[in-house]
Amino acid sequence: MHSYPIEIGDSALTAFQEAISDASKVMVLVDDHTLDDCYPLIKPYLPAHNICVITPGEEFKTLDTCKLIWETMTREQFDRKGVLVNLGGGVIGDMGGFVAGTYKRGIKFVQVPTTLLSQVDSSVGSKLGIDFQGFKNHIGLFLDPIGVYIHPPFLKTLSERQFLSGFAEVFKHHLIADREAWHSLKKVSPLETDTAAIIQHSVDVKSRIVHEDPFEHGIRKALNFGHTIGHAIESYHLENGPLLLHGEAVAAGMIAEAFISHKRGLLSDTELEEITTYINTYYQLPVIAESIFEDVFSRMKNDKKNLSGEIMCTLLDGAGKVKINAPINQEETQEALVFYNSVVSAN
Amino acid sequence: MHSYPIEIGDSALTAFQEAISDASKVMVLVDDHTLDDCYPLIKPYLPAHNICVITPGEEFKTLDTCKLIWETMTREQFDRKGVLVNLGGGVIGDMGGFVAGTYKRGIKFVQVPTTLLSQVDSSVGSKLGIDFQGFKNHIGLFLDPIGVYIHPPFLKTLSERQFLSGFAEVFKHHLIADREAWHSLKKVSPLETDTAAIIQHSVDVKSRIVHEDPFEHGIRKALNFGHTIGHAIESYHLENGPLLLHGEAVAAGMIAEAFISHKRGLLSDTELEEITTYINTYYQLPVIAESIFEDVFSRMKNDKKNLSGEIMCTLLDGAGKVKINAPINQEETQEALVFYNSVVSAN
Repeated sequence: MHSYPIEIGDSALTAFQEAISDASKVMVLVDDHTLDDCYPLIKPYLPAHNICVITPGEEFKTLDTCKLIWETMTREQFDRKGVLVNLGGGVIGDMGGFVAGTYKRGIKFVQVPTTLLSQVDSSVGSKLGIDFQGFKNHIGLFLDPIGVYIHPPFLKTLSERQFLSGFAEVFKHHLIADREAWHSLKKVSPLETDTAAIIQHSVDVKSRIVHEDPFEHGIRKALNFGHTIGHAIESYHLENGPLLLHGEAVAAGMIAEAFISHKRGLLSDTELEEITTYINTYYQLPVIAESIFEDVFSRMKNDKKNLSGEIMCTLLDGAGKVKINAPINQEETQEALVFYNSVVSAN
Repeated sequence: MHSYPIEIGDSALTAFQEAISDASKVMVLVDDHTLDDCYPLIKPYLPAHNICVITPGEEFKTLDTCKLIWETMTREQFDRKGVLVNLGGGVIGDMGGFVAGTYKRGIKFVQVPTTLLSQVDSSVGSKLGIDFQGFKNHIGLFLDPIGVYIHPPFLKTLSERQFLSGFAEVFKHHLIADREAWHSLKKVSPLETDTAAIIQHSVDVKSRIVHEDPFEHGIRKALNFGHTIGHAIESYHLENGPLLLHGEAVAAGMIAEAFISHKRGLLSDTELEEITTYINTYYQLPVIAESIFEDVFSRMKNDKKNLSGEIMCTLLDGAGKVKINAPINQEETQEALVFYNSVVSAN
């Protein structure tokens, strides 16, 4: 597991070209946005290829969209030496990898992530999947791409909101694994950081953790900080609106889970304050009405990380460290959401 | 790959019981037939469990049925330590394994094959999958179960036709790998062989081959003898009727592919004669109308074994040996089908 190259920067696209040179056929999976904004930048590096265009958005990360992609590959008579190029954000990478990994029992695929979120998070670590009945990544695989090629200029195609959504994972990587870097990070606006350096830092943190525990039996769960409550909030909004980006939901989850960490004496008053202030400064997060607390909690009950009916959460154990497999209950979750509301409504 | 136990005979069900003892939840996947005929035999060996019942038949080996099973697991709040028990023939084993291997990115599963076909073939070798747009096992995975538990008394629940269908794979294992055993086999009716010994022989042959080449890059293709033309015939009948069982389609494919082997000087007159006589004695196979030769051939063009647009076939190189990666063309295929028709219409 996890022995594939991750190329960042100037050499990424030539390395990409080399990696797919022995494919019998190449298909590029894009959505309407990446077709317009990113495909022209990568086209000079591609051999003869097909294009498969899907509708953008998490709400299309479904089996029905997988069927469309499988159908296209079948119609183009892709054989087992074909390669799928996933050019897009997390949805394209997660779903494209799943489709490639199951087409004719698995063909090769490469990840060319185009959003900050996918560059720092979903393209590192071999987690593939689609949503099912409102549950995030409920159907999927652990499977390696043949390589990940990160071309920072793609980020210029993002809105500020999308960039900040990706930055939530950057921020998370600092909080769970690098106390010192977090103390530097909190002094600057996400929009003014050195992007290539930030991507490299996140890829390094995530690669190190994933390498230690590829199948998420232990320390990899560190990466789930903010995601237990965050995923439930994201899933609720996906179904009921308004639009909430993944990183925004994780930022919300980080406030709630930092509160629980603090309540258990794992995080100091100052640390909790710094974390919530940082998030509140750069993100516009929605209040979660008390009437939907129950719904959010019921979504947490089917989280992939749960064991034997208990909801397992990753807490911070001081900035830069984590405590994995912490069971949390409904009462704590509600209290954390009340705290979260008090933070974001002060914004 | 392929380091899981395969238990055959008296100790199989107690070994099964032990294998699933640490599951957080157990679900038994059955179809209407195995629920009635096989489930009562296994029930004493099961802890508390759920049952998921699907409609029997290859035509239900689809994404829609997978959705039903994923939905049931989700509703029962299966976590990652749950185990799926696939109690049935090849459809249950292939599809159940695929569903388990992709639920929450993979939970454990065990194979309890109940047909001769699945006992000697599909439960050994970690190939999982479902049909898609008429293509057999077009979407799937290579993934190991935690164990395969073969209880020969299940075979008493089969019709003679189903038993013979499974026996086609037994016969194939002899032809591709054991010339001496084939010379003994051809002297007795399939219905009068020692079933446990036959299963053991087939499991040994297949395990040896799969162990050498788990991902089918080379010698594992030996197992595809009869399957290039056979799958196309099966796929045609699945869509257009009349009902043709998998082993029957493979028996038909073996006649056609033995003919091509003979035509290329790889098989003697006597060997071709013995093979066709044996099949014709025990199987009632349909004539393939010349008007559908084109359709059968077009199905062969999307075979998973093809490379760079060429249809790759496994031929016999004398009884007991194979020649893999032999490209075959439309003309040869048609000639082989004409020969096949002459054989079966003489029946």
